Amino acid sequence: MGIDPGYHRCGFGVLEGAAGAVRVLGSGVIQTEAGRPLCERLNHLAQELDAQLLKWRPDGVAVEEIFFTKNAKTAIGVAQARGVVLQRCASGSLPVHEYAPTMVKSQLTGNGRADKKQVEFMVRKFVELNDEKRLDDELDAIAVALCHSQRMDVPEVLR
Amino acid sequence: MGIDPGYHRCGFGVLEGAAGAVRVLGSGVIQTEAGRPLCERLNHLAQELDAQLLKWRPDGVAVEEIFFTKNAKTAIGVAQARGVVLQRCASGSLPVHEYAPTMVKSQLTGNGRADKKQVEFMVRKFVELNDEKRLDDELDAIAVALCHSQRMDVPEVLR
Repeated sequence: MGIDPGYHRCGFGVLEGAAGAVRVLGSGVIQTEAGRPLCERLNHLAQELDAQLLKWRPDGVAVEEIFFTKNAKTAIGVAQARGVVLQRCASGSLPVHEYAPTMVKSQLTGNGRADKKQVEFMVRKFVELNDEKRLDDELDAIAVALCHSQRMDVPEVLR
Repeated sequence: MGIDPGYHRCGFGVLEGAAGAVRVLGSGVIQTEAGRPLCERLNHLAQELDAQLLKWRPDGVAVEEIFFTKNAKTAIGVAQARGVVLQRCASGSLPVHEYAPTMVKSQLTGNGRADKKQVEFMVRKFVELNDEKRLDDELDAIAVALCHSQRMDVPEVLR
């Protein structure tokens, strides 16, 4: 399961398969209500993530690292959500793998600074997404899961 | 209970009493092992914090906000621990109050930019700490709890 952490929207994508033949079992976005206190939003995120982990029972998770923007406030907010995500995964004894956004882009497109469109183009090359429109957070989560699956040097993908 | 979040050391301090007559019931530092994966450290923090919340059953928690340093990496690390702290408190249905470090300093010393020594001096004026040496994180946690108790405009402190 790939996870793109966020306190407003947190994307997840569950992959299955062996190298070169990967498919998306499920994906989506956990959304929390703007205007609610941060602690409640983080708790809602934790509860929904726990439910998804229970539903999909992944062999491991790949979690995107924080992208250092010039906007420190945004990075701090995402970091707080990311802490919750990491803790819930560790609480479930899941192996956690972390990837920088530049690594994900580099793995999927060959360019660590590729833009969102290029990453989405490549994600849709690797997995079937039925031309459906997807939220960025969901695509980013599938991308980090794909990155992990491609970097695993074992027959079983996402182990 | 005041909490100074951190993934290496997370301070906590439990206060009891009414305005002007506050005492420290207990305080300490939750420490996680350097070199362990971040997700395991965050999970250890969550487990230890859960144990302290169960032990002290506070009426509410006062949590220090992130101080924006020039070191974004440090701030990101602390923010991840802070997210875990907020989520565990919300999970226990505890009222969470957040205070900026400048607010804590301003409330206790009259100067939002007071240095650590000045804050410690004032903390020891407000509560009895038996001349014992305390870790900065523990003192900061007691300080944020004191700040909250002084700002509550109700007879029962820390409600």
